[in-house]
Amino acid sequence: MRRFGQVARLKPDKVEEYRRLHADVWPQVLQTIADCNIINYSIHIQDDLLFARFDYIGTDYAADMRRMEEDPVTQEWWRHTKPCFLHHDTGTYYQDMEEIFYFDPTTSST
Amino acid sequence: MRRFGQVARLKPDKVEEYRRLHADVWPQVLQTIADCNIINYSIHIQDDLLFARFDYIGTDYAADMRRMEEDPVTQEWWRHTKPCFLHHDTGTYYQDMEEIFYFDPTTSST
Repeated sequence: MRRFGQVARLKPDKVEEYRRLHADVWPQVLQTIADCNIINYSIHIQDDLLFARFDYIGTDYAADMRRMEEDPVTQEWWRHTKPCFLHHDTGTYYQDMEEIFYFDPTTSST
Repeated sequence: MRRFGQVARLKPDKVEEYRRLHADVWPQVLQTIADCNIINYSIHIQDDLLFARFDYIGTDYAADMRRMEEDPVTQEWWRHTKPCFLHHDTGTYYQDMEEIFYFDPTTSST
């Protein structure tokens, strides 16, 4: 399993739209997330700052990301969500962050 | 179970020290985290921006946080880590963020 942490920034005038979209994510978008082997997916917000964390349980992340990009409903979803991002003009959305600490007493893994 | 997402900022000249400390967290600090019913605890970084996520599996979060504050080794750990934060002068460290999305296909919970 691989853990991912990602950061992004919204345009200040698009925060409410991004929140509204994520309060009721389309079922097929969720299905594609599941099909692409992503679990335990959270998005947190503070003002215009977004933080996403998820676990990847598949064996070929790049292939699963291509699969996600090829889903027509996900493409339509992104036509709604991507313009909300501050750096939409340069195609910058969620960026991978580096994990500097992990501890889970239930598995004793770090 | 409650999920937490938290954000913090480091002083730019303290990023390396914070990284170094978290590459080898003291065993008693980890034990206290476990004793305080926190699991699945990750910290991610991008430049001076920190994001923490963890799950709380106890029944009284405030009481467990007081318990953590009372552990002498954790207090000593914080004497090392807290001065690394940008707003140490005002006592501002990790701040809780709002969760706007959650999906886990393995439990079908959102």
